[in-house]
Amino acid sequence: MSEIRFALAQIDTCVGDLDGNADKVLDYAHRAAKRGAEVVVFPEMTLTGYPIEDLALRATFRKAAWDKANWLAVELAADGLGDLYVVVGTVGSAAAEAGQDPRDAKPTNRLVVLHDGVVWSGYDKHFLPNYGVFDEFRIFSSGGRSVAFEVNGRKLGVAICEDIWQDGGPVAELAKEHIDVLVTINGSPYEEGKTHVRREIAAKRAAEVNAPIIYVNQVGGQDDLVFDGGSFVLDADGALVERSPQFVEDLSLFTLGADGRALPSTIAPDLDPDEEVYTACVLGLKDYMAKNRFTGVCLGLSGGIDSALVAAMAADACGGANVWGISMPSMYSSDGSKDDAADLARNIGAHYDVQPIEPLFVAFQRQLDLHDVAAENLQARIRGVIVMAYSNSKGVLALATGNKSELACGYSTIYGDAVGGYAPIKDLLKTRVWELARWRNRAAAAGMGIGGLRIVGNESGEPGVALPDGVMIPVNSITKAPSAELRPGQKDSDSLPEYALLDRVLAAYIEHAHGRADLLADGFDEKTVDTVMRLVDRAEWKRRQYPLGPKVTALAFGRDRRLPVTSAFRE
Amino acid sequence: MSEIRFALAQIDTCVGDLDGNADKVLDYAHRAAKRGAEVVVFPEMTLTGYPIEDLALRATFRKAAWDKANWLAVELAADGLGDLYVVVGTVGSAAAEAGQDPRDAKPTNRLVVLHDGVVWSGYDKHFLPNYGVFDEFRIFSSGGRSVAFEVNGRKLGVAICEDIWQDGGPVAELAKEHIDVLVTINGSPYEEGKTHVRREIAAKRAAEVNAPIIYVNQVGGQDDLVFDGGSFVLDADGALVERSPQFVEDLSLFTLGADGRALPSTIAPDLDPDEEVYTACVLGLKDYMAKNRFTGVCLGLSGGIDSALVAAMAADACGGANVWGISMPSMYSSDGSKDDAADLARNIGAHYDVQPIEPLFVAFQRQLDLHDVAAENLQARIRGVIVMAYSNSKGVLALATGNKSELACGYSTIYGDAVGGYAPIKDLLKTRVWELARWRNRAAAAGMGIGGLRIVGNESGEPGVALPDGVMIPVNSITKAPSAELRPGQKDSDSLPEYALLDRVLAAYIEHAHGRADLLADGFDEKTVDTVMRLVDRAEWKRRQYPLGPKVTALAFGRDRRLPVTSAFRE
Repeated sequence: MSEIRFALAQIDTCVGDLDGNADKVLDYAHRAAKRGAEVVVFPEMTLTGYPIEDLALRATFRKAAWDKANWLAVELAADGLGDLYVVVGTVGSAAAEAGQDPRDAKPTNRLVVLHDGVVWSGYDKHFLPNYGVFDEFRIFSSGGRSVAFEVNGRKLGVAICEDIWQDGGPVAELAKEHIDVLVTINGSPYEEGKTHVRREIAAKRAAEVNAPIIYVNQVGGQDDLVFDGGSFVLDADGALVERSPQFVEDLSLFTLGADGRALPSTIAPDLDPDEEVYTACVLGLKDYMAKNRFTGVCLGLSGGIDSALVAAMAADACGGANVWGISMPSMYSSDGSKDDAADLARNIGAHYDVQPIEPLFVAFQRQLDLHDVAAENLQARIRGVIVMAYSNSKGVLALATGNKSELACGYSTIYGDAVGGYAPIKDLLKTRVWELARWRNRAAAAGMGIGGLRIVGNESGEPGVALPDGVMIPVNSITKAPSAELRPGQKDSDSLPEYALLDRVLAAYIEHAHGRADLLADGFDEKTVDTVMRLVDRAEWKRRQYPLGPKVTALAFGRDRRLPVTSAFRE
Repeated sequence: MSEIRFALAQIDTCVGDLDGNADKVLDYAHRAAKRGAEVVVFPEMTLTGYPIEDLALRATFRKAAWDKANWLAVELAADGLGDLYVVVGTVGSAAAEAGQDPRDAKPTNRLVVLHDGVVWSGYDKHFLPNYGVFDEFRIFSSGGRSVAFEVNGRKLGVAICEDIWQDGGPVAELAKEHIDVLVTINGSPYEEGKTHVRREIAAKRAAEVNAPIIYVNQVGGQDDLVFDGGSFVLDADGALVERSPQFVEDLSLFTLGADGRALPSTIAPDLDPDEEVYTACVLGLKDYMAKNRFTGVCLGLSGGIDSALVAAMAADACGGANVWGISMPSMYSSDGSKDDAADLARNIGAHYDVQPIEPLFVAFQRQLDLHDVAAENLQARIRGVIVMAYSNSKGVLALATGNKSELACGYSTIYGDAVGGYAPIKDLLKTRVWELARWRNRAAAAGMGIGGLRIVGNESGEPGVALPDGVMIPVNSITKAPSAELRPGQKDSDSLPEYALLDRVLAAYIEHAHGRADLLADGFDEKTVDTVMRLVDRAEWKRRQYPLGPKVTALAFGRDRRLPVTSAFRE
């Protein structure tokens, strides 16, 4: 048998953008053909974008997607690419087209092969994930059969994402059919440490079908999800023969040899764990801006670490010249904080305005005469009004700067510091915020300027705009004790356990779903456990009103962790 | 065979309140026994409350629910009620207890019979709804067998809610077993017109098993759902023999005769359609307050119809003396508006404060110098700060007063008039807002005072605190042209189609999922269709940041209509 050459087209699609996504497929198909590929494989739901949520239930959307798949097949052939096998994902609508009630006959998550001017072969995803961020059972019906097709005498079996995460189903069927390669298309969202898990599960399936496996993953941000790409190929014995880089669009080629073995190809190196998470956050923001047509951002700069890290990420996403940093000192803000905010803005080349809130606070207090927490919240809300005024008047996206620790504990003011359309670090615990700030400074010292991250839209991996003195985030913002500065001498540690401890309890309670007895058995003291559990349980309501932000851990707030707002249960 | 007497215990549970829910079961079991019942039937997931969302995935919660069911069985027997058959819903945890990964072995939605001091019989829900507001496939695994049990020589088949909405499954199995009665426990959320649909589907199942059907539904508000009760019994031929009232807790009895036929019992009358929706909104608010321990509310009173209706609902929910109405006139507020707000507050006996926003607006503008929409939003956001200041300083729940028409079109200011923890009319189109205001005034004229609604916590149906002159909502608030009053002479109709037209387009686009071509075929003109679709598609992001509010229509924003925030698709 002859060799066969595959292209892995790891692209960034936009949900609902049928025209743009199809154009990108056309572009990558041309590039793949030029490099000698016979088969080009795109991610899950290429044409529609992923995840499409309830758009799947709109008949007009399904019709438009079907028309677009046919258009694309014709267009490929007209461009002389009719011989190429183009594997793309889309939404299937057979049942709905048969006139059945969409509640009884939902659409499918479909893989199609475009070839010879037609939509040539179809496979419907069998296992529909409906846990964590996934809601596929809600919107799709399950496919009932496995599919393999022949290309130049070689038999290709196909599967979609979750199909390889569960035993049985289509891969078990394909194992009986002696396929030559298992082609999988995926929309697997990023989370810390997932690269390793993906590779393990793929190795298991390669062994099951006794053939190499191709794993093509989507890249890019979509709402609160970030897809990291990192597509790869394993040989039948699980050996890594190809790996695409994370966070950038990519077209890698790989050859299945005449002997049925995968020939070695390029292998992108692993990223440092801090670099990986930081990059995920920047890509989430950059793509959220691009897909919602924002070119700039605004945010409050307090001089603290959270707003400093968010500003740094924003500069990396859209360039410092498109960042509006607003210092909003109150009567309780320290001089150090104001200096740190100004230094940060200067380092990243951001616009920097000072808007003191004291005159506004005095005007409100003349009417309202508030005390205690109500007076503290008033300061935060005046700042919220100012940030939104910048957003409205300059047409830029307001960024919320809250981290996961304070979000979990409700240590923020709703409609105050929590305002914004996107929250870049909402899935990072405070201790991680410090780690990432330190990593970004190390990268700056090593020469990585603003925009030097290798992400979608910046694929070249150039070092970016140089930082003055090679410093990005003022060291003082990283090392000083955290404070909301809403009353004299206030420190976060007045209200919360120290973050080093708090974050460990939060990880156990939220990520690992430990109950009270488990937490005590983990060795945490009773007072800390009860404090943290009370804060977290009370804060559920606030979290519902937080803006979107990228998911980077296994269990983020949002579509992952969904608990009733009203609940009397305490663990 | 002898007669057998059933009690339908239509109760209001709270999610997570295992102790409170179990105590209520005990109380109603005593009352049922006193009235001669041999079997008492409670709603779906009685012990846990419903819907429990991801609480189902917490092992500590499942363990606590299991312990509570056993405690309750023992307690019933100790109280001399061991002979009674007590049918309750709870969460099943067999698979998880077997040590399996909860992702592979999810819990079940379970019905248990408490009898003779033990948890005596169990049935697991077969059909798991995962559409609209339901996410059960996410959290439960499906039961695989039907269950019938004998009481005094009569055979009782059981089913849980969705089990009767779909063909096949446990009811089809029971049809072969010659059961004497089909007992169903339900958590069926309210929506307009659903009473009729429930009765039709129940009649179908009664015919299928050729026996009477008992339908016990939950009552009360839970987050953004309202359960209306309205439990009922149909004879084998579909005839209505018992109906419990809507929106109140209730214990009704019904007898299955020696001849196998249902004996006629009490039948609560139907409510007027406007009364039904109004009552659903008030119960949603009242229960949200009770279950989150709020005793009062605050809201801005503009003199317009939206805030007037919300204030009226609030007075009905918690009494006018617990309502803080805040008039926040700007330089553009008309005298008429200020008078209407004051009249409304006086009518319902609310606290009434005037907080002019002009001095605050001037203070902000001195720093920010905003124009156009940014300046309009500033006014709304200053009001938002004031409303939240009242909420914080008085410890009361802030109410957002937005309706579904403006919410759908994005005609509101995020962090401005949209602030609040609960939005009582977020699922009412503007034209419906006017209708409900007129209905409430007719009810007031007919003698229904504040708190005169028959809802949970006010079961007696007393007419309530009399209204001065028998008027609740100032007629002027109902009849005048709607205006946001954010610039001189502004009218809603400057930016939006007239509401009579807009609401019809919104109903077609949102509720009936019509695409652009359908809307044109519906007879709407192209300009209106394009305007409305553009507004609705753009507003998706804002809607994510709105507070909770009760669902009353088939398709509300929130858990029902979930579209990606980022999407380039236009229908």
